Amino acid sequence: MARDDVKTGYKYVGTRPNRPDGLDKVTGRARYGADFSLPGMLHAAVVRSPHAHARIVRIDASKALALEGVKAVVTRADLPTGLTGEDLNLQDNTLAGDRALYDGHAVAAVAATSPLLAQDAARLIEVEYEVLPHVTDVDAAIAPDAPVIRPGVADYSVPEGMHGNVARYMEFGHGDVEAGFAAADVVREHTYRTEATHQGYIEPHAAVGQLGEDGRGEMWVCTQGHWYIRRMCSAVLGIEAANLRVTPSEIGGGFGGKTTIFMEPLTLALSKKAGGRPVKLVMSRSEVLRATGPTASASMDVKIGMKRDGTITAGQVYFRMQGGAFPGMSPIGEALPCAFACYDIPALKHEGIEIITNRPKAAAYRAPGSPMAAFAVESMIDELCRELGLDPIEVRLKNGARNGSKSSYGPVYDVIGLQETLEAAKAHPNYSIPLGPNQGRGVASGFWFNHGGETSVSLAIGEDGTATVSIGTPDIGGSRASIGLMVAETLGIPYEDVRVNVVETGALGVNEPTHGSRATFASGKAAVIAAEAAIREMCKRAAAEWGIDADAVEWKDGAAHPAGPNAGKFPPMTIGEIGAKMGSTGGPISGHHEVTAGGYGASFGTHVVDVEVDPETGRTTVLRYLVVQDAGTAIHPAYVEGQYQGGAAQGIGWALNEEYIYGPDGRLQNPVFLDYRIPVASDLPMIDTVIVEVPNPGHPYGVRGVGETGITPPLPAIASAIAGATGARIRSLPCSPPKVLAAIKALKKG
Amino acid sequence: MARDDVKTGYKYVGTRPNRPDGLDKVTGRARYGADFSLPGMLHAAVVRSPHAHARIVRIDASKALALEGVKAVVTRADLPTGLTGEDLNLQDNTLAGDRALYDGHAVAAVAATSPLLAQDAARLIEVEYEVLPHVTDVDAAIAPDAPVIRPGVADYSVPEGMHGNVARYMEFGHGDVEAGFAAADVVREHTYRTEATHQGYIEPHAAVGQLGEDGRGEMWVCTQGHWYIRRMCSAVLGIEAANLRVTPSEIGGGFGGKTTIFMEPLTLALSKKAGGRPVKLVMSRSEVLRATGPTASASMDVKIGMKRDGTITAGQVYFRMQGGAFPGMSPIGEALPCAFACYDIPALKHEGIEIITNRPKAAAYRAPGSPMAAFAVESMIDELCRELGLDPIEVRLKNGARNGSKSSYGPVYDVIGLQETLEAAKAHPNYSIPLGPNQGRGVASGFWFNHGGETSVSLAIGEDGTATVSIGTPDIGGSRASIGLMVAETLGIPYEDVRVNVVETGALGVNEPTHGSRATFASGKAAVIAAEAAIREMCKRAAAEWGIDADAVEWKDGAAHPAGPNAGKFPPMTIGEIGAKMGSTGGPISGHHEVTAGGYGASFGTHVVDVEVDPETGRTTVLRYLVVQDAGTAIHPAYVEGQYQGGAAQGIGWALNEEYIYGPDGRLQNPVFLDYRIPVASDLPMIDTVIVEVPNPGHPYGVRGVGETGITPPLPAIASAIAGATGARIRSLPCSPPKVLAAIKALKKG
Repeated sequence: MARDDVKTGYKYVGTRPNRPDGLDKVTGRARYGADFSLPGMLHAAVVRSPHAHARIVRIDASKALALEGVKAVVTRADLPTGLTGEDLNLQDNTLAGDRALYDGHAVAAVAATSPLLAQDAARLIEVEYEVLPHVTDVDAAIAPDAPVIRPGVADYSVPEGMHGNVARYMEFGHGDVEAGFAAADVVREHTYRTEATHQGYIEPHAAVGQLGEDGRGEMWVCTQGHWYIRRMCSAVLGIEAANLRVTPSEIGGGFGGKTTIFMEPLTLALSKKAGGRPVKLVMSRSEVLRATGPTASASMDVKIGMKRDGTITAGQVYFRMQGGAFPGMSPIGEALPCAFACYDIPALKHEGIEIITNRPKAAAYRAPGSPMAAFAVESMIDELCRELGLDPIEVRLKNGARNGSKSSYGPVYDVIGLQETLEAAKAHPNYSIPLGPNQGRGVASGFWFNHGGETSVSLAIGEDGTATVSIGTPDIGGSRASIGLMVAETLGIPYEDVRVNVVETGALGVNEPTHGSRATFASGKAAVIAAEAAIREMCKRAAAEWGIDADAVEWKDGAAHPAGPNAGKFPPMTIGEIGAKMGSTGGPISGHHEVTAGGYGASFGTHVVDVEVDPETGRTTVLRYLVVQDAGTAIHPAYVEGQYQGGAAQGIGWALNEEYIYGPDGRLQNPVFLDYRIPVASDLPMIDTVIVEVPNPGHPYGVRGVGETGITPPLPAIASAIAGATGARIRSLPCSPPKVLAAIKALKKG
Repeated sequence: MARDDVKTGYKYVGTRPNRPDGLDKVTGRARYGADFSLPGMLHAAVVRSPHAHARIVRIDASKALALEGVKAVVTRADLPTGLTGEDLNLQDNTLAGDRALYDGHAVAAVAATSPLLAQDAARLIEVEYEVLPHVTDVDAAIAPDAPVIRPGVADYSVPEGMHGNVARYMEFGHGDVEAGFAAADVVREHTYRTEATHQGYIEPHAAVGQLGEDGRGEMWVCTQGHWYIRRMCSAVLGIEAANLRVTPSEIGGGFGGKTTIFMEPLTLALSKKAGGRPVKLVMSRSEVLRATGPTASASMDVKIGMKRDGTITAGQVYFRMQGGAFPGMSPIGEALPCAFACYDIPALKHEGIEIITNRPKAAAYRAPGSPMAAFAVESMIDELCRELGLDPIEVRLKNGARNGSKSSYGPVYDVIGLQETLEAAKAHPNYSIPLGPNQGRGVASGFWFNHGGETSVSLAIGEDGTATVSIGTPDIGGSRASIGLMVAETLGIPYEDVRVNVVETGALGVNEPTHGSRATFASGKAAVIAAEAAIREMCKRAAAEWGIDADAVEWKDGAAHPAGPNAGKFPPMTIGEIGAKMGSTGGPISGHHEVTAGGYGASFGTHVVDVEVDPETGRTTVLRYLVVQDAGTAIHPAYVEGQYQGGAAQGIGWALNEEYIYGPDGRLQNPVFLDYRIPVASDLPMIDTVIVEVPNPGHPYGVRGVGETGITPPLPAIASAIAGATGARIRSLPCSPPKVLAAIKALKKG
């Protein structure tokens, strides 16, 4: 899929126009999931298990149904049977079957004429539970005496003899690891742990669903991918995909957590039972934290060998990751390949297992698996650098992957920008600011594969020569603006004349969600190809009018020009002129492109952070933070910077404060933002950014995704900066004040 | 555009499945224009001129704006200046400029936090008028002393010396008319008149509009054509088409009256002035009747010569039609070509003028111009048949157009079905039921051109092998079902696996409205071609998997089959199997087609009606009514019958009761359904239908549009039946009881 015609010398690409959704979001005109309402709409509430693990003995909804205004109650008995595999997992998570598998697992749902009435009715639904033994910690879950949560869940990959809570096993590598360790001057081995964190999007899940007796339904929903919503809801409810029309709202953040379903099918099931009336369901923050998201907790063994000059001779990891109560949900398959993806190391061995626990079904979170892996491997490299007195950037420059390196997970890198980010970080003023007492500096690099995926885009020329672009990837981080700029550049018309619309599932071919840093890359690439198709058609129309061959027409500056021997024979025909008469020259002009997009380029970044640690309290203050990342080409640099800053902010939260805290009863103890501490503006400095541009040859404008890599380096960079400030190495996130204080005290005692 | 592969032997085409919108409409789930609501939405009311013609001296909105909750007032001063031509007409009709041109002309609009408050505020807006002379009747408007309403409005076609209210002149014909009349045994000449009628759709105009300071807007609106709404609103408000995203609602009837704008731009203009808050405007019935629709009133001279054997030797017409206060709005350009379109006559002369009056801007109404023309010409032919004692069907069989006839307006007919409808009517039992006292039988034929027009359709295969079809023509009379059946037939999958969606302007290429009987024909034809494109791609995918040439794959029964030398080598690959893995075989599968569709076949029908007239009151009762019409191929026969019945019902209303009644003050005296009498169920018998099928070679399934022709024959057929029952010929519609009674009395006196 690589193109050798990556364009340069742009008029619109690389500029920073106002964001197309800016006024909408500032004035409140943007419509989010909870902003949809329909005549006759009902409101829903969900009954959730208060137990981490329990058999559901009996559900009695009679008191709820006796309330005036209560229109329907659904339990698992209302959903079709006979599902298998991932469809069954989705259905099991939508409504518990014979067992509730985690604190917050949905057990029943009710629809009533007001939200308050629905909540009252939910409280009247009586559920009798038989509490079962549970386990929530990833290491505890494979202790010999741990209860087996989902017997028989292990897939073919799990070797015999492993604990019954192991669902999956992976192993790969290259080179002779033992010889590598033998060649090293220093070999160190440690275990690193990260706790589960939540995506923490500001907008809770919200949907309005409507489903008739005829099996025809509609949904308005806050999601990263409405075709996924369509497919998953259809599977869970046994309806046909074409008969469910899903319209996405604006989205107040997703970060991977809105690429799947949680409560969405409940709105449809309730609607059908309530005679087809639309049903709205908006989750509370507590429901979001207890029963959506989060990412996996991880326990990771790392062993690395290094020579005194900084050469890494071998690496080995063993990762244990949980994905909640459902198999296949941990990011073990991404975490292992990410572990050493930044490096070119002669011998590597990766091993890992996925573990079932009584926790909510994990969802993707920005570069799933990569932050945990980076925390383990980059921390260990920093430990070695400090032990050997080496500069951490120099060590990364020496061992870092380059164009043509064979990646740690197999493929050979094409054109990548890791070295360029390291050079830029080294040259940045932040890297040479002298540090004061109790201050430390951390460096880490990060990686994400990026993704292309299934993509359908259509583009239509209007009667006035403006263009509408129909995309299927919800705009989370500015993809409408970026795609609009690329289309404007391609068509040669002002950016203001292009409007990019995220359209519903009934209006376009299938699209994967906005995930994998793919939206601007893949929808953008397809939009450019669709625009090129429209240009060919416009040249054809001009050629027909001029009576010359279509190949003898050239498109530039938004107009068809006679070219070659015909150059200058006719005045240029503008897109506006062609649009105005298209009805009489053959019909409407559109361009389309459907593809599973390849050619996404791998993404690398390097972060530098300075912290100060209060030795009295263990509180860490981030003094300054630098993100350097390769964007390929930054189509709309302000949005790129926003992605860098947002990723860093989330990574800092993960590093310093965020964690799921389960009590011994298996209940989540902090399901509110007061207790689950995401960083707020006052917690962070202005995050400095440097956009490195190593154009991606797989995209006509050189784009590579920028959304995910930024969350990866902060976890190890912060921990390493704290180590620099205090001498204490924290190997278990978060680096919360009590934990840092304890480490400082242990060091003093030590 | 003709295809020689019109298909036969269908599995789905020609069946009568439940309508896809049936449950929606029966249960109230269908969302009409007034059913959209948005957070923060305002409600609008319009101030309308009580004068037929007046200078607007002053508008003072200060009292309205002083009311708490009133957010914006717009007058013409808020709209951009400098428009010309049709755009200026649209703007002038949206809000009066220096003059109000008809009773009901919008002068100002106000947005407030509730509908009642908006109405209160509208009453507080003070408008000072200077009343000017007016004229509302089409013949009075060209009397020498009639005031000239729009000086300078005449276009190039108007001969010098005509009255200043004449805006357009047309003339065409063929053969030697004078020789033709000389060769006739009988030549008769009369003047026929029809009054303006309204489309009478059950759903009033309704829209929610939103427009920000950034020039980006959205609209949800009840319309026949949302790209027309987009184009017209953009022109009137000076915004770019791509920046206005228009979503159509379900539609409670349009009949041509919803192919243009009336109050829609006001919602946008008010929204912009109110800081971008959405604004809803729902017209009252009285506003609908005073300021939207109606069709033209007409005064028509007809002269026809006939031999004793029924041969028509020559025909001549002079039509005078008004289109309200704006030029270009009368259907004179359609009425004249329709006049003799059913006949093959050696000598014809057509002449006509368009006249400006102080009436609302006329809109299209089901076969615009054809019903008036048919009333004049078919009535006259019936008069000649009765005078010469000839059977009206035999006379039509003798003179009627056939395949290869040169039409009265120029083109040669391809394959048409007029003769077949005449034969079917003649053979129908209704035509030989004996008549009792005071009963009469009327026969008339009717014609409509049909239309193709600008059409864009996309079709996408789902992951489960179901298909979504995206069309841009709102479904008024069942086009979603018909297009779904054709796509199911083409793909070879069950009709239930196909869902046809009417999508918004931001999601598809440009489409003309659902008008001209074009939706099932043109969107259907494009959908079939798009499905064929998807089939080609699916065959390619199967071929790639099988490792054979794509040409060696055949599509049948919803699956790819290896064909030719490969036949039977591999099991068929179903659409579901291809859909399930399309992501890994190249990407999503879609098909698209954009075209200005040709090949629509001309439409003909013949009606037979029996009436009984009460000689005491002049009241006409329709005893039985037969519609015979050529559908080409009836894709969903129940919908075709519905179109036939609906057209006949509207034509009967026009013939018997409906009329705009203007007082001497130029005000509409009957702007409510109590006084403007459309037929209700108890006014009509069950309308019998016979579907004639003469497949249209211009469509892959032989479709020709069926929506419009049915309204044309009732006007003359009813008048002729009344003549049969009473001996009195009514040459001025409606045949209301007082008029019929007066004619009977005049006859007795006579």
